[in-house]
Amino acid sequence: MTDTAISADVEAAVLEACQRAKVASRSLATATRITKDAALHAMADGLVADAARIVAANAKDVDREREGGMSPGLLDRLTLTEERIATIADALRFLASLPDPVGEIRRGSTLPNGLRLTQKAVPMGVVGMIYEARPNVTVDAAGLALKSGNAAVLRGGSAAAESNEVIVAVLQDALESVGLPRDCVQSIDAYGREGARVLMHARGLVDVLVPRGGRGLIQTVVRESTVPAIETGEGNCHVYLDADAPLERCIDIVVNSKTHRVGVCNAAETLLVHKDAEDKLPAVLAALHEAGVTLHVDDAAADLAPDNVPTVPATEEDWATEYLSMDLAVRVVENIDEAIAHIRRYSTGHTEAIVTDDINAAEHFVSHLDSAAVMVNASTRFTDGGEFGLGAEIGISTQKLHARGPMGLAELTTTTWVVYGDGHVRG
Amino acid sequence: MTDTAISADVEAAVLEACQRAKVASRSLATATRITKDAALHAMADGLVADAARIVAANAKDVDREREGGMSPGLLDRLTLTEERIATIADALRFLASLPDPVGEIRRGSTLPNGLRLTQKAVPMGVVGMIYEARPNVTVDAAGLALKSGNAAVLRGGSAAAESNEVIVAVLQDALESVGLPRDCVQSIDAYGREGARVLMHARGLVDVLVPRGGRGLIQTVVRESTVPAIETGEGNCHVYLDADAPLERCIDIVVNSKTHRVGVCNAAETLLVHKDAEDKLPAVLAALHEAGVTLHVDDAAADLAPDNVPTVPATEEDWATEYLSMDLAVRVVENIDEAIAHIRRYSTGHTEAIVTDDINAAEHFVSHLDSAAVMVNASTRFTDGGEFGLGAEIGISTQKLHARGPMGLAELTTTTWVVYGDGHVRG
Repeated sequence: MTDTAISADVEAAVLEACQRAKVASRSLATATRITKDAALHAMADGLVADAARIVAANAKDVDREREGGMSPGLLDRLTLTEERIATIADALRFLASLPDPVGEIRRGSTLPNGLRLTQKAVPMGVVGMIYEARPNVTVDAAGLALKSGNAAVLRGGSAAAESNEVIVAVLQDALESVGLPRDCVQSIDAYGREGARVLMHARGLVDVLVPRGGRGLIQTVVRESTVPAIETGEGNCHVYLDADAPLERCIDIVVNSKTHRVGVCNAAETLLVHKDAEDKLPAVLAALHEAGVTLHVDDAAADLAPDNVPTVPATEEDWATEYLSMDLAVRVVENIDEAIAHIRRYSTGHTEAIVTDDINAAEHFVSHLDSAAVMVNASTRFTDGGEFGLGAEIGISTQKLHARGPMGLAELTTTTWVVYGDGHVRG
Repeated sequence: MTDTAISADVEAAVLEACQRAKVASRSLATATRITKDAALHAMADGLVADAARIVAANAKDVDREREGGMSPGLLDRLTLTEERIATIADALRFLASLPDPVGEIRRGSTLPNGLRLTQKAVPMGVVGMIYEARPNVTVDAAGLALKSGNAAVLRGGSAAAESNEVIVAVLQDALESVGLPRDCVQSIDAYGREGARVLMHARGLVDVLVPRGGRGLIQTVVRESTVPAIETGEGNCHVYLDADAPLERCIDIVVNSKTHRVGVCNAAETLLVHKDAEDKLPAVLAALHEAGVTLHVDDAAADLAPDNVPTVPATEEDWATEYLSMDLAVRVVENIDEAIAHIRRYSTGHTEAIVTDDINAAEHFVSHLDSAAVMVNASTRFTDGGEFGLGAEIGISTQKLHARGPMGLAELTTTTWVVYGDGHVRG
């Protein structure tokens, strides 16, 4: 399969889980919205009812990882409290309130020969998820898959293994309580990394794989997987201040894009400034510094930083880095085309923003870039399923196949052509 | 990269071609329909003007392959005549008559905070094609890619190398004549199988890979490629005669699905018959025999074949075979659910058809199957981009990600979210 051997036992067990998911997915595919929403409510109720048991299991994960030296930030993401569980349960209830993406008619027509053609949204079948140590993703992914009529095979990080085991059992009990197969949601955490690799090669059993986590995880999945995978969430996002950009708007958008939340994929990582907007740079850099941002600057920007604003010299590596921290790379460019060339070279294709009052510059920026989202006079932070009104989000796709940008429930469906005739044959 | 080494020279040359295609794709992405259609007409005119030169190059391919023992069927597909070139050129002119898929607004809304959201169709960028010895695919693929604003990197079969070299040069001259970069259409045939493998791993340079050809080629591409690929064209299609199916319609649809054209992916390969429709089977088998079909039958069907209709016993392998020939597997089933179970087990997910007068049976068949197209009382042969009114077709996708069923120009685009604000930041 790949360079290291996978034990036959693990392979058999994971493939069997996928096969059971495939069988279960057939019940889900024809389940009505009423049944699916009842399942989501039962899942939410079950999580709240069993919150103490989940918190106890989670405490074992947290203690083990703390002793193992996990960073405070990651420990916080791993930690569940009864309050957090209530929030996670509410997200399931919100999913239940959304329209059913299955059965939507996308296109249709009557052909010249009288054939009646309908392109209908149907579930993918089995969705595989590979993610890291955030147990809330287990519930999120199971809920999104269920609402879109898909069975889910989940591989969470080993750091959350105790938490995920209890959570999945609670979700399975809820499924059973409304008459759906327990196999609609399964965890393969027990099979470790080997299990994840079997999942990546379960082509024919698993219909799509969605990795969620850091760059290493995502790149491993998209490169190794023979199951069609969706590349998500890497965001080296840029803000470009055009020659003709009003100062206040520059400050608002740059500071918001960088500092509103730093550990997320739609945060800005590089600021590009037209040389004719250099006069705004001192104030922009001062505002960023005041907000706590470390500025990695090129020579031109260094010269423009006020004396009380410390900077560090930017290296080639800075342009390519998704900091996910209070750091920002800053570069002065000759013109908009140099900004576009910089973005094309270093962007991960997530989100880029231009600040300008010039309609021609805005149009040029939009039409010459190739990212999932391009913002004109708005913060990069808006690239988000919730903000876009998609209701819920399973990830943000930075690839071009199937889904691009925030992936909601619709992106977890595929289509089938249903064709009605009355004995039509081709002549 | 994989198990056998690839020479550094080939890798460098193919990656450079892909890089040049990426640069060229930027001109194409912003080219107007007027320019793209002018290019398609110039390509058509060029092919016709240079037909003699193309036919001469093609003769070398045909002679070499004939001596090498290529079958008459494949030799016919390889052969170009001035008449065939005129037909190929007409297909380009037809493409020019189709609407531009680029720039289409798919969704859009104004968000509660006033942000104006637009999801716009944009080109993929660089489309890779790996195909076999049919030089017409070279023109087809180049034309479809161009119309949808994509650069194309083409890897045709070595059997058509001489033909493709001349054809690509003619197409590049046409591009240049309307001011588009020659690099919009490139061939990497000179780099052989090694070149194809570099193309499959050019993730980041090539946006999507579409294989066209036999099962071996397609499976190699979808399994080995790290570039997102689309599985196309494998069709183990089924026709199911329900208990309540009128005899004449059974005969019409089965004979048409099997014999209208046998070497294509939407031809039927297995006939399933409800046991309550057994009385129709003798006449259906007789009609198929008369049309020249070899019948591979289970025991129940064997018993029902008229004395003058020869049959051969079906084996397990027959159910799984895409014959692409005048052969048909035939099985009698207990009921519609056994037919559905059979199809789920053996189908490649292309097209299935039911013949019935029973609305409940039709609905049950449609909602319990999971293929790209499901026909009710119509021939499997209708699953086709031209028949569906999509205008043109680059292949028929049997996977669930991105495109399903006939892929037209729209399926060669992706989308970008363009978001307009007036200084919006997240609070």
